[in-house]
Amino acid sequence: MAFKRIAESTVRRLSLYLSYLEGLNGTDPSTVSSEILAGLVGTTSAQVRKDLSFFGSFGKRGLGYSIVELRDSLRDILGLDRTWQVCIVGAGKIGVALAQYPGFGTKGFHIAAVYDSDPAKIGTFWDSLTVRDVRQLRDDAAHERFDIGVIAVPADAAQSVVDTLVAAGVKALMNFAPAQITTPSDVIVRTVNMALEFEGLSFALAHRSA
Amino acid sequence: MAFKRIAESTVRRLSLYLSYLEGLNGTDPSTVSSEILAGLVGTTSAQVRKDLSFFGSFGKRGLGYSIVELRDSLRDILGLDRTWQVCIVGAGKIGVALAQYPGFGTKGFHIAAVYDSDPAKIGTFWDSLTVRDVRQLRDDAAHERFDIGVIAVPADAAQSVVDTLVAAGVKALMNFAPAQITTPSDVIVRTVNMALEFEGLSFALAHRSA
Repeated sequence: MAFKRIAESTVRRLSLYLSYLEGLNGTDPSTVSSEILAGLVGTTSAQVRKDLSFFGSFGKRGLGYSIVELRDSLRDILGLDRTWQVCIVGAGKIGVALAQYPGFGTKGFHIAAVYDSDPAKIGTFWDSLTVRDVRQLRDDAAHERFDIGVIAVPADAAQSVVDTLVAAGVKALMNFAPAQITTPSDVIVRTVNMALEFEGLSFALAHRSA
Repeated sequence: MAFKRIAESTVRRLSLYLSYLEGLNGTDPSTVSSEILAGLVGTTSAQVRKDLSFFGSFGKRGLGYSIVELRDSLRDILGLDRTWQVCIVGAGKIGVALAQYPGFGTKGFHIAAVYDSDPAKIGTFWDSLTVRDVRQLRDDAAHERFDIGVIAVPADAAQSVVDTLVAAGVKALMNFAPAQITTPSDVIVRTVNMALEFEGLSFALAHRSA
């Protein structure tokens, strides 16, 4: 099924619902109301019902949603019911942080390969993986099926890494480099950059008309 | 000066220009062209000139921008020429990662206080700070001037921490909690959530019409 029309904001809310449900344990009740989910994400219970109705029929009027069922369904909807092969380019701090990120592996993101251009890093162990030469990336990506490429290289190297991954057929990229990257329209890109976010706050604070 | 009309995308590009300029060292040329900056952020040189023209007159036609001057101006524009007092609520992994984030302190973000609700953490040392009881937050924030509040608590505690910070006059929040938070319109909020971003990729991959 293709859900092309689903807004990014809806997907974010689905992730937030799931994150909440995964934090619940056996001592909690077995159902959750749309009101509780709504409060958590700062929306209305009508919006919660609408978000979920895109994907089928959940919950019973007046009884709420079964936590176990809704959790499984959300995992399924979010594509977390399978394993995605992730390749990280740049064996630096961000890559390490990612590998140690709680729940990253258990959520179905499997780090299949790590690359770097630094001869001092290539060939060293990185958890159970050996850091590979980034010059191998093009060949490797052509026969290993990487689903997601993580760009964790300096800004001026980012676009060439992106181009290599795209040429090898990788359709989803997570960009941690402090650079805007350009890709064909069928490649999905997300960006995480803490420095940019903090500087956005700083800019806004500095220019408040107070 | 208030630059209310400046789009968030412009501010992001200014951060990216600065990040690039800060990575340059003494062996590089002393000027940079708008074409180089444009390539870095995936835009046109006309856009670069427009971005910078909001804030005054930079560069000389045909000679490009002086790297030192542009760097200083961008720091100034982004509010990085002063120190912002940051209070972190939640003395967990995210807070630690933030404190260790390269360049966070040198960019002018000073971690002034850390709070937690866990009795096992309260009173322990955290770098040079002592973790405070979150129940002190309301009183402390009333007389210590925190510019930025970092929300690094579980989802179900996020909104109450936000309300406390907002009531104490904190005008900028960085949200790491997997929850949508609501604030008055004069409070600036940025969100960083790696899990949400990866799940966004996963959702898109799972529902590609391939």
